[in-house]
Amino acid sequence: MATPLRIALAGLGTVGLGVIRLIEENGAMIAERAGRPLEIRAISARNRDRDRGHDLSPYPWIDDLDSMSREPEIDCVVEMIGGSEGPALELARKSLESGQSLVTANKAMIAHHGMELARIAEAGNAALKYEAAVAGGIPVIKGLREGASANRIERVYGILNGTCNYILSEMEKHGRDFGDVLKDAQEIGYAEADPSFDIDGVDAAHKLAILASIAFGTALDFDGVEIGGIRQIMAADISQAKALGYRIRLIGMARIVDDQLFQRVNPYLVPIEHPLAHIDGSTNAVVAEGNFAGRLMFQGAGAGEGPTASAVVADLIDIARGDTGPVFGSAVGDLKQMARAESGNRQGKSYIRFIVPDRPGVLADITAAMRDASVSIESMIQTEKTEDGSVLISMVTHSSLERDINESLEKLSASDSIIAPPFVMHLLSEHD
Amino acid sequence: MATPLRIALAGLGTVGLGVIRLIEENGAMIAERAGRPLEIRAISARNRDRDRGHDLSPYPWIDDLDSMSREPEIDCVVEMIGGSEGPALELARKSLESGQSLVTANKAMIAHHGMELARIAEAGNAALKYEAAVAGGIPVIKGLREGASANRIERVYGILNGTCNYILSEMEKHGRDFGDVLKDAQEIGYAEADPSFDIDGVDAAHKLAILASIAFGTALDFDGVEIGGIRQIMAADISQAKALGYRIRLIGMARIVDDQLFQRVNPYLVPIEHPLAHIDGSTNAVVAEGNFAGRLMFQGAGAGEGPTASAVVADLIDIARGDTGPVFGSAVGDLKQMARAESGNRQGKSYIRFIVPDRPGVLADITAAMRDASVSIESMIQTEKTEDGSVLISMVTHSSLERDINESLEKLSASDSIIAPPFVMHLLSEHD
Repeated sequence: MATPLRIALAGLGTVGLGVIRLIEENGAMIAERAGRPLEIRAISARNRDRDRGHDLSPYPWIDDLDSMSREPEIDCVVEMIGGSEGPALELARKSLESGQSLVTANKAMIAHHGMELARIAEAGNAALKYEAAVAGGIPVIKGLREGASANRIERVYGILNGTCNYILSEMEKHGRDFGDVLKDAQEIGYAEADPSFDIDGVDAAHKLAILASIAFGTALDFDGVEIGGIRQIMAADISQAKALGYRIRLIGMARIVDDQLFQRVNPYLVPIEHPLAHIDGSTNAVVAEGNFAGRLMFQGAGAGEGPTASAVVADLIDIARGDTGPVFGSAVGDLKQMARAESGNRQGKSYIRFIVPDRPGVLADITAAMRDASVSIESMIQTEKTEDGSVLISMVTHSSLERDINESLEKLSASDSIIAPPFVMHLLSEHD
Repeated sequence: MATPLRIALAGLGTVGLGVIRLIEENGAMIAERAGRPLEIRAISARNRDRDRGHDLSPYPWIDDLDSMSREPEIDCVVEMIGGSEGPALELARKSLESGQSLVTANKAMIAHHGMELARIAEAGNAALKYEAAVAGGIPVIKGLREGASANRIERVYGILNGTCNYILSEMEKHGRDFGDVLKDAQEIGYAEADPSFDIDGVDAAHKLAILASIAFGTALDFDGVEIGGIRQIMAADISQAKALGYRIRLIGMARIVDDQLFQRVNPYLVPIEHPLAHIDGSTNAVVAEGNFAGRLMFQGAGAGEGPTASAVVADLIDIARGDTGPVFGSAVGDLKQMARAESGNRQGKSYIRFIVPDRPGVLADITAAMRDASVSIESMIQTEKTEDGSVLISMVTHSSLERDINESLEKLSASDSIIAPPFVMHLLSEHD
């Protein structure tokens, strides 16, 4: 048997332990597949004494991450610390600088510092791999970077956050409101105590920026992602969408429009015949549309100990096999710096929900503002009285410029005909 | 720029031309991703003079496949000839023997001769790649062999034949019978003039045997696949299944049962909440269930010029990058020879449809035979009179041993209470 791949693992939370469990359980099989064994030669975490419910005595402990990154007997560091900055980033930089390969599940770090880390990796001929950073156990980084590599990718989009998809699915299934479902999700561990990274779309945006870079051969541009979340979605929106033949999903969407990069995370109304409409619960799914392959979709568990460990160890097996290739699919120097596309140029149908007082003239004010901005209304779906006496009005526009919709809503912002800011979601079509 | 990957292409049918078109159209981008250009240095086909509607003058013509496989200026041969034996197989053997890499979309050849070819490839340190042989443009070979490589795969199964899925979807959508839909499918080119390879399940079986080998690390065993097709399915079966909350799909299913390999292609009743129930038309989809990743699903176009070319060129890019690895995921010597599991041991619910004469006592005969074989009936769904005066009886069994069901049907085979052999389909569950 060839020499082992010697691994150091930093961070012993759920996923770190999952990696250890996986290598212990599937190690013999993996050695056959990789052509050499994966050996954990060092582990590290902030607190050595904590009981983690797993026997870690077989693994030498390193207290100092600096010495881990300088250790010549380590081929590959697995960073499971988390956080986009701080010790995770420092370890990543130093390991790659000293020629060690790096495997991470840290989407925030890759989204913010991926270009810098890829440059260091390239300079030192080290591998930098992050399959687990996007969509958990689904091999979508590999699917895009290698499986679809012959294609010019037209769009990449999908359901990138399991917490949001779980909440939306539950709201739909039981007709419940956002706040109630979120509370339950927190109780059973499907949502964090501070859920804002998930439900405000930031987590999905991290993943989307990574996918877009690989799909289009562009430099990572996390700051260019327009981000919206699901807090404002009401049970009424979901039932209105359903009546129209749509389901509401938080979608990360990236495409190239006129040589500009469009990246957005937002809830969309997804037509029931689209495969993403059937992704329920905490499942993730990514669609890539290629100019030869057509529409590919990858789905599976987007988070959790097992799926994440599966992706981390797949990266380790690739490294053991010597199959690594460029970090973002092309050499860093070949990645294009691309201007950001204006979302105002979007042309398509949109769903708008207003909360208005129950008095005459309100609808006249709203429709006049829309007419003045050249937005025409395809259907007014329903008006519904809420408990506090206000009224919900939901409508779907004809295909309109997003800029015009925004203009019409701005005109209304000072009007006493609306009680709360209107809430807009787009109807997913091939033009998005 | 590094030296090009020098390619020879044998076979200029739809897919062969698709590969040429793809490399012409996406070549510059591919060179960036692969780190070197893909160059077609030679082409060949049976008939040089045929007008293929594409300018092939840039590519040197080789008449003799033997000289192609001996040409030292060729790094990689793309075999697009087709057929499990004959010139395709000869070219594959000789190219690999002389150390050229080989890329093929030829599922029949891989299913029948994959082990021999992998041995030759391994001995000569050449790559043998066949992503396009299974599920067209979907990177499922890569997904299993690399993406899910950290997992012990529990089951691999899916919709592997687009023609069958198209026919079943159309039958379902329009309530039409098999023969009518097949005729239409042939007219629009979705089914071959001789459709038997597709509709009798052989094509799906080729693909399943390949998937099973990679998933389980077992030697390819095409002859061990139990094969059934869709010819016998009637519009009535589809509507009965629908009433039960199921859709009928031709499923290729492989798993390990008690250290034995179970491989079957057969129509199944798929529960509406299973992701495979939502795969319509000619789309393919493959599910892999791993002991850490959980359930992964890959879907996309299973055939056609563009998708197949996409998969072929992805293989070429891997070869250009030097990312190849063992042909079936482990070295040939490590692939296990595994006994074949008895399908009679299957325990689960089944759907049985009888065609019987319209006279008293028939149901008593059938139910007695089933009772005698310990098969109990969960529900008799419907009886329906056909045009010729016979009667359809459909039923669903309680969870039963498949062996007992077969025994009950054997008991009935000589009875004048049934007009045609009963038709059995299993209800897909986690035990299949």
